[in-house]
Amino acid sequence: MGYEAMWRDLGLNMEEHDKLLGGLVSEFKEAFLERKGPKGMDYFYWVVSEAHGRLIEELLEVKRNGGKVVGGFCAYVPEEVVVAAGGRFVGVCGGTQFSIPYGEGILPRNLCPLIKSAFGFMVGNLCPYYKVLDLLVGETTCDGKKKAWEIFDYYMDVYKMELPQMKRDVDREAWFREVVLFKGKMEEISGRKIGEDELEEGIRLINKKRRALIHLYQLRKRNPSPISGLDALLIAQVAYYDEPGRFAEKLEKLCQELEEGNHSYKGPRILVSGCPMPLPFWKVHRIIEGSGAIVVCEESCVGTRYFWNLVEERVPGVEGKLRAISDRYLNINCSCFTPNSERVEGIVRFSREYKVDGVIHFNLQFCTTYSMEFIKVKKRLEEEGIPLLEVETDYGLQDTGQLKTRIEAFVESITY
Amino acid sequence: MGYEAMWRDLGLNMEEHDKLLGGLVSEFKEAFLERKGPKGMDYFYWVVSEAHGRLIEELLEVKRNGGKVVGGFCAYVPEEVVVAAGGRFVGVCGGTQFSIPYGEGILPRNLCPLIKSAFGFMVGNLCPYYKVLDLLVGETTCDGKKKAWEIFDYYMDVYKMELPQMKRDVDREAWFREVVLFKGKMEEISGRKIGEDELEEGIRLINKKRRALIHLYQLRKRNPSPISGLDALLIAQVAYYDEPGRFAEKLEKLCQELEEGNHSYKGPRILVSGCPMPLPFWKVHRIIEGSGAIVVCEESCVGTRYFWNLVEERVPGVEGKLRAISDRYLNINCSCFTPNSERVEGIVRFSREYKVDGVIHFNLQFCTTYSMEFIKVKKRLEEEGIPLLEVETDYGLQDTGQLKTRIEAFVESITY
Repeated sequence: MGYEAMWRDLGLNMEEHDKLLGGLVSEFKEAFLERKGPKGMDYFYWVVSEAHGRLIEELLEVKRNGGKVVGGFCAYVPEEVVVAAGGRFVGVCGGTQFSIPYGEGILPRNLCPLIKSAFGFMVGNLCPYYKVLDLLVGETTCDGKKKAWEIFDYYMDVYKMELPQMKRDVDREAWFREVVLFKGKMEEISGRKIGEDELEEGIRLINKKRRALIHLYQLRKRNPSPISGLDALLIAQVAYYDEPGRFAEKLEKLCQELEEGNHSYKGPRILVSGCPMPLPFWKVHRIIEGSGAIVVCEESCVGTRYFWNLVEERVPGVEGKLRAISDRYLNINCSCFTPNSERVEGIVRFSREYKVDGVIHFNLQFCTTYSMEFIKVKKRLEEEGIPLLEVETDYGLQDTGQLKTRIEAFVESITY
Repeated sequence: MGYEAMWRDLGLNMEEHDKLLGGLVSEFKEAFLERKGPKGMDYFYWVVSEAHGRLIEELLEVKRNGGKVVGGFCAYVPEEVVVAAGGRFVGVCGGTQFSIPYGEGILPRNLCPLIKSAFGFMVGNLCPYYKVLDLLVGETTCDGKKKAWEIFDYYMDVYKMELPQMKRDVDREAWFREVVLFKGKMEEISGRKIGEDELEEGIRLINKKRRALIHLYQLRKRNPSPISGLDALLIAQVAYYDEPGRFAEKLEKLCQELEEGNHSYKGPRILVSGCPMPLPFWKVHRIIEGSGAIVVCEESCVGTRYFWNLVEERVPGVEGKLRAISDRYLNINCSCFTPNSERVEGIVRFSREYKVDGVIHFNLQFCTTYSMEFIKVKKRLEEEGIPLLEVETDYGLQDTGQLKTRIEAFVESITY
């Protein structure tokens, strides 16, 4: 691979990192490379295979050119502001069982696997992204993450953004202030003044990325779908890592290929809704599509919640643009808000628009907000007569057999 | 008992409520009445024995006289404002395994027992307090409670207060606004204008209650302690239910008795810190004191966090008084805040002031914020050389044997 020197320089635990990559490579091959996807997927497969290699080199180049690399765990970190400061945003969520034992050495076991995995990557020196960060951004979304930053702080500073818990006018104002503070922080670490033009550039670039994702997800409304759910999920995952301009171009190219109509994925159509599925978590999609169904939409922060709203363009003034940004983000319907009826109604709407045969509500173990909100989702989908299966799992493989049985039974029940 | 007609009128599930009381009465006798406590405790035993009887009659009298009864789940609900509107505040937290199966029929199982118990009391028609409420107040403290109000809303309206998650100036301002909104809500439901005099009255009455509790907790600094931890915990629990003026007088009377020095409780001195222990949760204290140690302080919302700060008196003006109230509450160091270093330092300070031999950190199962904050508590207490035991449990009795073994071993290890 030729990246050993870089990894060593970055201070990774070489032996454990080798084991990590070894496991991921074989899982990735089995899940993706041994199937035949659209040609345009090759780029995204390349990004994943280079996630710890070429992509890290690129971030080091950004830094050498004076740009700052900012990491975050949440769809709520305003990437536009990072771009406006000449920087790059990357997601540093953990999505693998491998790093969890490192996290559990310190964190409670009955905590969401995403946090344990992300923390384990950091303390275990398993993830090159942590090593290149100029700033790590946390937010007060859920209890687990909110309190995790305090523990991260023992190892590396976390800049915290306070996300409000409701969406009243006072909350919009509070979140706007957070975005202004974040702009100040980015100016401070980059030494660059963020003016109207810089914000405009950030907004345009990230909107371009989000538009390409919308294009992809619009195509998935076709019946049959022109892309597998697994490939689409991979793209949504890559969106958190890749250089946004290149990502958008490659994705538009893939969408053109899909428009041509040579690919079709038939089967009962499934909407997956709930917790995010960070790279490399593919377990649930693999089981669903292995059972003959097709995932046509992810109502998730690795999915629609990441891109469905755009920042309004051509709003004048620095304050105007910052308000456009903060307003856009507060339209993300995370279950950490109360109430969060827009998400529940969104699931109903997506179910109609994507003509789904059923919804699978995916809950990461110990994720209180999504498991509580499931009660409302269930009530609404029952009212609408939309079949629903609740799946609660973690990143391990112990429950694969049980999940298979449940998901296969569900798929069979909605097949006609 | 003679309250059957009232309970029936209130719509309780008579059969199940009888079973609930039957279990509680025998546990209460065993835990309290069969020991010999100070004479002044008799009043508090009476309150507990009348919690579903005479105390409910009193609330109905308050209502007949035009006062409003307000229920809440948290030390953050500003009681002073309720009193200013001529109303009464009562805690409606659940502290018993009995009501949990009712809650688990709807809520996820891996949720904090306090929420499941409180919700179970409500949906199971087991708790007369819910039946007399004019207003139920929820707050955005933890994920579990924040999302629970949305489920409560299917059964009874919950008025929500948005608690900030940090304690910066903007957060103090945000919380002040919430207190102002709450005053408006109380004016609306009571039809009474809350002016400076009414607020002054509310502040004085609730300060009086808190001062009496401070007096009690100051006496517990004596070595040996003049009161058992179990009796003191019961008083802290009763503080959420009883009429504040009478409570304060009876508690001051008990304190006078304790001042006389005829009671002494010897043994290794324990500070219990962590999650609240609502009525009738006595399990941990019973095991600790059964092992020969004495609990001398509860750093808890049923304990010091409930009363250690007073609202500043004699601040002029309605706004001034509301600010004094909101400032007082934001000094409660709940683990839902980030950071919450004041609590961690407070545990160290209490450990010194109460000359404790060890700290037992009590965590309710699935309480993420306290279990995460434990990491910081552990680090600080290790630095200070203060012995620490972590106890994570629920309201059930299945783990009593295991807890006994662990707590006895801890007590033995700190006995010299």
